[in-house]
Amino acid sequence: MISVSASQSAAAAAFSTPFSRRFGLRLPLVQGPMAGGPTTPALVAAVSNALALGFLAGAALAPEKIASETAAIRALTDRPFGVNLFVLDTARPDDATVRRALASIDPLRAHYGLPPGAPLTPPARYAPDFRAQFDALVDLRVPVASFTFGLLAKEDVARLHAAGSYVIGTATHVAEGLAWRDAGADAIVAQGAEAGGHRGTFIGEVPHALVGTMALVPQLADATGLPVLAAGGIMDGRGMAAALALGAQGVQMGTAFLGCAESAIPADWKARLRDSADTATSVTRAITGRHARGIRNPLMQQLEAHPENVAPYPVQNALTQELRQHAARANDGDYLSLWSGQGAPLARRREANLGAAQLVDALDTELRATLERFERFAAGESSSA
Amino acid sequence: MISVSASQSAAAAAFSTPFSRRFGLRLPLVQGPMAGGPTTPALVAAVSNALALGFLAGAALAPEKIASETAAIRALTDRPFGVNLFVLDTARPDDATVRRALASIDPLRAHYGLPPGAPLTPPARYAPDFRAQFDALVDLRVPVASFTFGLLAKEDVARLHAAGSYVIGTATHVAEGLAWRDAGADAIVAQGAEAGGHRGTFIGEVPHALVGTMALVPQLADATGLPVLAAGGIMDGRGMAAALALGAQGVQMGTAFLGCAESAIPADWKARLRDSADTATSVTRAITGRHARGIRNPLMQQLEAHPENVAPYPVQNALTQELRQHAARANDGDYLSLWSGQGAPLARRREANLGAAQLVDALDTELRATLERFERFAAGESSSA
Repeated sequence: MISVSASQSAAAAAFSTPFSRRFGLRLPLVQGPMAGGPTTPALVAAVSNALALGFLAGAALAPEKIASETAAIRALTDRPFGVNLFVLDTARPDDATVRRALASIDPLRAHYGLPPGAPLTPPARYAPDFRAQFDALVDLRVPVASFTFGLLAKEDVARLHAAGSYVIGTATHVAEGLAWRDAGADAIVAQGAEAGGHRGTFIGEVPHALVGTMALVPQLADATGLPVLAAGGIMDGRGMAAALALGAQGVQMGTAFLGCAESAIPADWKARLRDSADTATSVTRAITGRHARGIRNPLMQQLEAHPENVAPYPVQNALTQELRQHAARANDGDYLSLWSGQGAPLARRREANLGAAQLVDALDTELRATLERFERFAAGESSSA
Repeated sequence: MISVSASQSAAAAAFSTPFSRRFGLRLPLVQGPMAGGPTTPALVAAVSNALALGFLAGAALAPEKIASETAAIRALTDRPFGVNLFVLDTARPDDATVRRALASIDPLRAHYGLPPGAPLTPPARYAPDFRAQFDALVDLRVPVASFTFGLLAKEDVARLHAAGSYVIGTATHVAEGLAWRDAGADAIVAQGAEAGGHRGTFIGEVPHALVGTMALVPQLADATGLPVLAAGGIMDGRGMAAALALGAQGVQMGTAFLGCAESAIPADWKARLRDSADTATSVTRAITGRHARGIRNPLMQQLEAHPENVAPYPVQNALTQELRQHAARANDGDYLSLWSGQGAPLARRREANLGAAQLVDALDTELRATLERFERFAAGESSSA
């Protein structure tokens, strides 16, 4: 006899897994770390205070800024949270690469009256130094550390473990999941092809590694034996329940949090997310030099017109940054990087600019409702779907 | 109090929906119609006799053959089954198009000692006439008729309804689902990007319409209000439960049935399905002139080397057919169209060459197990996932 009383389920977590219990979460929900502005300390803390797992995007931040943002989060919550970094080598682009990239970018800069761009000197200005970021992260002893774009060495995972951090690697296919398992990761984010923002792919070609969440999650769970957090296309309690059915121990949702009140992105980006269609996004490397999924706009289309000019990440990313900052100040979505997953239109079912805590509440309610619908169907009861 | 006793759930369907109850299915499972050989009357009847919904791929068959295959199915089962057609205009390629296509195909034909190819005369030989197929289908009064590649007119849907057929349209995004709803379809197959074989896209560009199942199913269910059958990446009871959580009333599984004993594909295709990786497939139009997902092999790679030579469907499909038939007789997967979804490796968890009825049994058991795991978790019970 399987029996769940309404009062029990109201008191307990809607759905608990070893992962959610480890961090005392009320539902197995991680807020996706989104580099480039959205994840303010206010957003991260709001999610963690709502008993989900908030996540700071540290990738674009200097080590001192990672420390100050982490301190700001800790001032706002005593709950667990995470910090994400991109595993990157130092960029040392040659002049020809930069000049080719600027040949495509300069005409767009002119749109805002910006002068032609120039190589950044010293080259360290293309991106924060990953090793310095990593050392800072170890010192900060954050509850959870996650990594994208590459793989940590075993020794680095061990340093994080010694600092008390739980380590999550990002995988877009099984071989990457096995590499993270062998490096000692505690869990894997399964980044399905639906996901918005940068692809984490670090083994093989990105076009081959666009595996949908439905196919990816069970394969990663079976192959690695580690807790898997499903990401990509999950926007509501239905998607959460689906991911858990596939064998995930939790979900990581980015796009759903992009539209929250605490998310520091321009209003036009939020508006375009809500107005988008399921077919509105493409995966492009033209904006940053690494493949990322976003809503098609003039920025993407004009830079894609000359793929041969696109510099590798982080060079292209740095060279398009001033342009995108101007677009942000002008609230002009035409020249922003409008990162978004394929599930974005599902956000229209919610109020615009919802607080993150209210979103977590709504997801909890929806997950319960989905589970109850399931139990009714499993019991053979009739229902119009 | 929600309560399911073990004896109740053993006696009843594992999970019933309005769709599954309409056809008296023991679980909400449709076997995907797969043109090009796999779906023999034996396979279709085995699935239907196992109380799932078997489906004949009628697209490549002349009207008389659709009638004889349907008769063969009816001789083997008195259960409901379906027939699928591709909605196509008649091909009338000009000579230059055919010559360009053959410039890429002839070197591969030479591999089997075949002479250079030639235009087919009359042009009707490029594909069976859709209108004649459709008239035959109406006359056959099959329980279920489904359509891919295009949209039926309202009057055609009405003819099928008058003949007692339930009508299912294929959609790869919301706008296509709405078009089918407006045409009067009874249900929608949501073809996620993970799915193997031809993309059903008939509005907009295929690369924009590769929406993952996780994102597609809830959007189509919300937008159309019709029963949605989820397809793409679903290989086991976990995937079935996930699709149902997303709001689907059933699933359509193709790749999972490709490896069955009754599936009439070459042994090397079955072997490569089992040996494949999650990243082994690509979507290509080089083999048939329409985008389709299959395992990369020399046939795909060599034809993709000259995309400008590829003729539109069904011309390219017809022109590569003799070559592929020779590959089939030689059991040589290098020159077959190895259609496959991204979930194919999950089939390795099963015995090879399983009977279709045994596969339906296994899926039923797995769906029950997933639902029970769900109920345990929802009840807050501890479990290692």
